[in-house]
Amino acid sequence: MQKEQLEIEKISHSLAHLLAMAVLKSDPQAKLAIGPSIENGFYYDFELSKKLEEKDLQKLQKEIKKLITQKIEFKKEEITKEKAQEIFKDQPYKLELLEEIEKPQIYQSGEFIDLCEGPHITNTSEINPDAFKLTKIAGAYWRGDEKNKMLTRIYGIAFQTEKELEKHLKQQEEAEKRDHRKLGKELDLFTFSDLVGPGLPLYTPKGVAIIEELKKHIESICRKYGFQKVSAPSLSKIELFEISGHAQKFKDELFHVSSKKKHDFVLKPVQCPHHTQIYASKTRSYRDLPIKYMESDKQYRAEKSGEVGGLNRVYAITIEDGHTFCTKDQIKDELRDLVNIVKDFYSALGLWGDHWVSLSVRDYSHPEKYIGDSKDWDICENVLQEISDEMKLNAKKCEGEAALYGPKLDFIFKDALGKEIQIPTIQLDFATPKRFNLFYINKEGKEEHPIMIHRAILGSYERFLALLIEHFVGAFPFWLSPVQIKILSISDKHKEYAQKIHEQLFAQNFRTELDISDENLGKKVRKAKTEKIPYILILGDKELEEQNITIESRDEGNLGQSTLEDFITKISKE
Amino acid sequence: MQKEQLEIEKISHSLAHLLAMAVLKSDPQAKLAIGPSIENGFYYDFELSKKLEEKDLQKLQKEIKKLITQKIEFKKEEITKEKAQEIFKDQPYKLELLEEIEKPQIYQSGEFIDLCEGPHITNTSEINPDAFKLTKIAGAYWRGDEKNKMLTRIYGIAFQTEKELEKHLKQQEEAEKRDHRKLGKELDLFTFSDLVGPGLPLYTPKGVAIIEELKKHIESICRKYGFQKVSAPSLSKIELFEISGHAQKFKDELFHVSSKKKHDFVLKPVQCPHHTQIYASKTRSYRDLPIKYMESDKQYRAEKSGEVGGLNRVYAITIEDGHTFCTKDQIKDELRDLVNIVKDFYSALGLWGDHWVSLSVRDYSHPEKYIGDSKDWDICENVLQEISDEMKLNAKKCEGEAALYGPKLDFIFKDALGKEIQIPTIQLDFATPKRFNLFYINKEGKEEHPIMIHRAILGSYERFLALLIEHFVGAFPFWLSPVQIKILSISDKHKEYAQKIHEQLFAQNFRTELDISDENLGKKVRKAKTEKIPYILILGDKELEEQNITIESRDEGNLGQSTLEDFITKISKE
Repeated sequence: MQKEQLEIEKISHSLAHLLAMAVLKSDPQAKLAIGPSIENGFYYDFELSKKLEEKDLQKLQKEIKKLITQKIEFKKEEITKEKAQEIFKDQPYKLELLEEIEKPQIYQSGEFIDLCEGPHITNTSEINPDAFKLTKIAGAYWRGDEKNKMLTRIYGIAFQTEKELEKHLKQQEEAEKRDHRKLGKELDLFTFSDLVGPGLPLYTPKGVAIIEELKKHIESICRKYGFQKVSAPSLSKIELFEISGHAQKFKDELFHVSSKKKHDFVLKPVQCPHHTQIYASKTRSYRDLPIKYMESDKQYRAEKSGEVGGLNRVYAITIEDGHTFCTKDQIKDELRDLVNIVKDFYSALGLWGDHWVSLSVRDYSHPEKYIGDSKDWDICENVLQEISDEMKLNAKKCEGEAALYGPKLDFIFKDALGKEIQIPTIQLDFATPKRFNLFYINKEGKEEHPIMIHRAILGSYERFLALLIEHFVGAFPFWLSPVQIKILSISDKHKEYAQKIHEQLFAQNFRTELDISDENLGKKVRKAKTEKIPYILILGDKELEEQNITIESRDEGNLGQSTLEDFITKISKE
Repeated sequence: MQKEQLEIEKISHSLAHLLAMAVLKSDPQAKLAIGPSIENGFYYDFELSKKLEEKDLQKLQKEIKKLITQKIEFKKEEITKEKAQEIFKDQPYKLELLEEIEKPQIYQSGEFIDLCEGPHITNTSEINPDAFKLTKIAGAYWRGDEKNKMLTRIYGIAFQTEKELEKHLKQQEEAEKRDHRKLGKELDLFTFSDLVGPGLPLYTPKGVAIIEELKKHIESICRKYGFQKVSAPSLSKIELFEISGHAQKFKDELFHVSSKKKHDFVLKPVQCPHHTQIYASKTRSYRDLPIKYMESDKQYRAEKSGEVGGLNRVYAITIEDGHTFCTKDQIKDELRDLVNIVKDFYSALGLWGDHWVSLSVRDYSHPEKYIGDSKDWDICENVLQEISDEMKLNAKKCEGEAALYGPKLDFIFKDALGKEIQIPTIQLDFATPKRFNLFYINKEGKEEHPIMIHRAILGSYERFLALLIEHFVGAFPFWLSPVQIKILSISDKHKEYAQKIHEQLFAQNFRTELDISDENLGKKVRKAKTEKIPYILILGDKELEEQNITIESRDEGNLGQSTLEDFITKISKE
């Protein structure tokens, strides 16, 4: 498997060089930036002297195929910096890269020479000319920095067989149909503004409706298990994160906040240190434990400006976060509760079942990599194993996957495309309470550090929303739908009745929309269907006369006539 | 009235000078900073060479009384900068102040000379020696900047008569009892952490419970009137606020956000510009209007670090904000809705009724001070007047109180101490939609700018919580109480039953707390009463046997025995 992986990486990387050769043939003045292999393929960034369009890709592809059949060899050579500077004297990007390289290495294929660490194939005969494809042209800033020049990036994909290529293209097509950026716009869930900036989504009423439902859902589950909401500010002195260790960990990702009045804060990159300060605000007794805080708030990370996009990479992620402070004796009960929360939440989304659990423990051959007493570690790992057995989680022991300060349980689900997604995690932490000198008075009247359990259930609302959009292709289950019911009048005569039905449903807190426009019914129904609304109610003469409604269900088709009461009973169950 | 005001200000300011004289007598090395008159009194900041304690205030007060009886004259003189520098050569703070003064002026009283703009009384015989009091000593940074030296500030209060002084001291005492900082700590509603920093409150579960209830309450009212929740990021490029005009307005109060990756953002000081961008994300038709967005989110202001404290002055205020976008024809209906929202919300708190309304219009003699077409102004002012008449608001026309871009309605309530509090405001805005080039397609198919209506109902949650704490002295109405019901077991035998009652109430979403500790009942009851919990349920032999509960109400006293069902019926109404 790993050998195959290396093989295909070599092919991809070599295709990037062939792509550069093809580009230089049609545009000899082109300046070359970098051309690495990536997952399922490769790209190359160019500064072109003439504009390239999508239709030109075919020509380039043909040219590459021709090069492949020429059985060109790839030859590696280590050279001096001076020689490299001579070879690339007309290639400013290569010269810039050279500044940071002590011992340059080049690869030559035919006439073409590239500054490159490899590895490559030895001969183009290793490439299947029918198993690769140039896929798209995009803009890309030199070194991913928007302050630099915008280059032209050409993407390609590569496989060992034509069949694999076709399978990938099909998957790609499906993924594009589900792309949350595309669907998010179509369904009017969120938007971006040039004046606000990329990486900073603005949620429309429909987007907020979904997020609020998720929040209500997760919070009501957690409340049952004793979690209480707290609220911490976004800002803090950096000292807080120096003690927790996050200032060092997120060094380059920290946002610093200043003002003309010489303030000096950071935006919180995580929530945990703030929560320790709420715990520390009072003297706690063993009788008060466990204490469980939850909070859905934004955490800030200075992502590279060239890399933000959609909801998956943003500057502020809204984490549904929670922390349990408990005694050692309480760990097992708390873990059980937390697993139940994960189970309750993912069951409601139909995702529980098709998942596996990792029991992430120490690397036993390197105990020095971890902090804390090895006896504590033993206790905790055993408790996690017991929980796995008792709750039939069948957790797979993954050695070396523990966090620095404690073992954890990770839950891995599959999305609709079969892609593994790892979101929920339950993590024991002995270290943080010590760092902040948190304590409680134990039965003997002595100070003792509590154990802290970190847990993520849905992770961040941004990524989870993206995932849900792609998983359900926008056709959300009833309880999550931003508009649950759309009410259509057939003609002018039925407007008032439609209004009345709308008000009755709205008063019962259903999310409804009314369409009493003068469009014909067919158009109205089609529009509601594009919006993937779970129920459409159609109101005409018959319905008005009989004082009932006709229901069109997104998932079950036409349900015929019904009274409003029966309909409310039906949907209340959903 | 204004003359009286000036008189008492002169007295206060002169007392500040007398205070400096008294301080210099006991500490000749003291360095003098500034000593202004403030509301109800004065202060003076000193760098003292010996520490001062509260008990020293009496000595100083005696010394000041002695000075008053000496009938000292206050003499004003304008002098050259050079001469001033000579006079104050041993007073470094005065020298620093002199750097910014072109034409220095001094006041001499007896031997004492102060750099001062006045005005002052002419003779200390104008001061009633029994109508002033030195009240406290506090630390204060030079120029309010925490990077500067900490000085000693002595506060005093001053009135014309002894009676006024006594009345003020009584009020002061009452206000201190109600101080939200004190009660907030006692009732465990919020906390501050040295590691996080001042001006950055952390809300405990109980504080969040109140805020969440307020949020639910205001949102459910606004939802009825068509408001929909949106969510905007905290960060933005500064361009957004340059267009709205807030970058200029909040120049020194803006927080700038940067990173090692060279990001350059600001934290939003207001919400409106972000909301315009959600409006602008789609083409709107007259059929889509009115569009009403609401959002409770933090807005950031770089307050002076020396001035933050409690919940009234913080770095991030959570504004319950809302914006209506509508056509001119819709203004009246929208205003009516907004007034009804204010009415609904304040009625639930028992504050509606004891209030007055300001119809804040243009200064008609200076039309040039406002932007927008005067015909539009006429229309809007007329509509506001009509609304006032129709809804019997009896609004008082306040000329010159309008905003730059439109007239408004302001609502002024009275808190429990009779202090006027101005929170709700409904403000018409013609300018912002033009600045952002917002439009809708009108009936004729042409682009037209919508009108924007800004409204605040409860203002910021921080200040509103402080106000509620002080208004209710912590005894919140049932629906707002962080803990609504406390369940006490009399002895060991009743623990299980108490647990059962607790679970039943918790399942019905009441906020309950259980006290089944081994303390005796008297102590438990007293504790619950200090916490100002609306209902205490007491469970002993009799209750267990008869399967009912004994209710102790905070506001109605002992209510005797009752079934749980009857109790739930009773409290559900509240």
